[in-house]
Amino acid sequence: MSVDRADRLARLVSEQGLDRLLVTDLVNVRYLTGFSGSNGACICGPGDRAFLTDFRYIERAAAEIGGWELVAVSDDWLSGLAARLGGRCGFEDQHLSVRQHRELSEQVPEGSELVPAGGLPEKLRRVKDPRELAAIAEAAKLADEVYGRVLKQGLGGRTEIDVARSAEARIRRLGGEPSFPPIVASGPNSAMPHAEPGDREIRSGDMVVFDMGVRLDGYCSDCTRTYAVERCTGPAKEIYELVRSAQVEALAALGAGKTGREVDGVARQMIVAANHGDHFGHGLGHGVGLEVHEAPRLSQRSDDLLESGEVVTVEPGVYVPAQLGVRIEDLVVVTDDGHENLSGLPKELQIVA
Amino acid sequence: MSVDRADRLARLVSEQGLDRLLVTDLVNVRYLTGFSGSNGACICGPGDRAFLTDFRYIERAAAEIGGWELVAVSDDWLSGLAARLGGRCGFEDQHLSVRQHRELSEQVPEGSELVPAGGLPEKLRRVKDPRELAAIAEAAKLADEVYGRVLKQGLGGRTEIDVARSAEARIRRLGGEPSFPPIVASGPNSAMPHAEPGDREIRSGDMVVFDMGVRLDGYCSDCTRTYAVERCTGPAKEIYELVRSAQVEALAALGAGKTGREVDGVARQMIVAANHGDHFGHGLGHGVGLEVHEAPRLSQRSDDLLESGEVVTVEPGVYVPAQLGVRIEDLVVVTDDGHENLSGLPKELQIVA
Repeated sequence: MSVDRADRLARLVSEQGLDRLLVTDLVNVRYLTGFSGSNGACICGPGDRAFLTDFRYIERAAAEIGGWELVAVSDDWLSGLAARLGGRCGFEDQHLSVRQHRELSEQVPEGSELVPAGGLPEKLRRVKDPRELAAIAEAAKLADEVYGRVLKQGLGGRTEIDVARSAEARIRRLGGEPSFPPIVASGPNSAMPHAEPGDREIRSGDMVVFDMGVRLDGYCSDCTRTYAVERCTGPAKEIYELVRSAQVEALAALGAGKTGREVDGVARQMIVAANHGDHFGHGLGHGVGLEVHEAPRLSQRSDDLLESGEVVTVEPGVYVPAQLGVRIEDLVVVTDDGHENLSGLPKELQIVA
Repeated sequence: MSVDRADRLARLVSEQGLDRLLVTDLVNVRYLTGFSGSNGACICGPGDRAFLTDFRYIERAAAEIGGWELVAVSDDWLSGLAARLGGRCGFEDQHLSVRQHRELSEQVPEGSELVPAGGLPEKLRRVKDPRELAAIAEAAKLADEVYGRVLKQGLGGRTEIDVARSAEARIRRLGGEPSFPPIVASGPNSAMPHAEPGDREIRSGDMVVFDMGVRLDGYCSDCTRTYAVERCTGPAKEIYELVRSAQVEALAALGAGKTGREVDGVARQMIVAANHGDHFGHGLGHGVGLEVHEAPRLSQRSDDLLESGEVVTVEPGVYVPAQLGVRIEDLVVVTDDGHENLSGLPKELQIVA
């Protein structure tokens, strides 16, 4: 599996007119080699498959990595990397710091050139293979289970932070990690798309935006539901139904060959038509994989062309300042003729205790 | 408090011949302004006190930050930063990526110059003020409590990972976060200074290196004890006593005005004299604060001159490959005439169940 990824990367590297690429972003390193430690880099090109780490991780690397030459860097890390470079050598300019770049430049062999070339492994990471899809599906399933267990205890009378902590604890008890700190935003706080859970006590009549994800074997899930506590007023119900239909229609518009802009547009037009255009201030969705936010993007600024096997969120929202917010988010796999939904939670308005 | 820090930083900035410093490292931003969100930067110089963030964090910034002009960057983040820069402007070259630096350079006003100037806030962070010392002491106390509770359940018969997870869960239940993933390394695994807890079942006769820290209100603690399970053989006891006396002597050598090299040397000479010099492959200690590893360093490579109010670990270790390892680590405050120990755990060999 990793060898195939390295072959595909080597092809991209060649196409860029490079001899090799130095990969220092640990998420990309993990994707390419399987290495899960906290210090490592790899060098990949038509004639290169080298993985470098320090003494702490050599045993782990030997256990985790196949198809790459393993190199233990014993002394200075950047000198160790520089010694293996040469020719037209790409580096990840979105990741390497200015200082690391300077030190590396001073140490690469005479005649070699460091060329900014960030983003190549990220291109490969967009389309997931069956093993990755299984890992993401498993993380999503675990999240569904946590939603169920947390809701069983009811939301009313608890603080946001209490609900968020109990969700985190349950995720860990089931063997995962939160893929980001859960959002539990109630009443007026639900109008802030990125609210952090606070000491506010959740009350009857509140809408509660509950956004949560799980990381399992390195892969993330991401899901949001909005619940009504005990009762739901007319305007809240209207907004909920608007968001729900926008979400369902956007899902129906998904499929390989569509652009991120098109799919975003489907939900956005419905929300604009209902005079809530100004209340939908973020994009429709984003890719999910080893990172909870990765390519592609679904938004009005995105030219990304969707491909079969990409995993994306579809999460329209309407946020009426100081009043309430509703967001509904599924995690789905893009397929040739549509999508496969990895989120199993109901989407009809749930009135909870 | 934050204003005073900004004043001191502005003085350092002037001394470097700079008009202002762009601070992008979030730990430094938090240190200077108190801001705890995940996107923010500040600009500090004799005539500048600007804090910049995006719309998500403006309300939080207003609540957390005093003495700084608050700027909401509405569109592109780097453009927003660039617009506020000018003159000879330092940037944190150990933090800004090559790509960010390029984009920033293209957008700063005509005639301004970006100058690499990483490490200035880090200098200020070395000496802790009373509030910081109290936070670190509190984190260390919480860690001591977790050690006690975990040991009450015994170590023998449990797997390393089970002990580590139970420590993490207890830290969280007491309101903290692990400042790093706990190390629980038993039997032959204890010979690897950075072993990760695995499925190995802890057995009678094992030495167990248990390294754990707590983060509370942003501040970290760090502590290690090595336990013997049920019994302790002669050679293990000898090594334990060697490490313990090296640790006690190094502590006694601490004080303002000493160098990191000197204090490291005290423990190292004792370990070398006992023919275990090759088995102590890391430095004696490191600073602890908002980060679990920060300046100063105690090692043979360190010219750092210790000052009163610095918080450092003192953690000699002896690791006999494939056999056993022992490390004993306290977290202490450097004082004018010695140190104050923040770790309250006993150092005599503990035989545990």
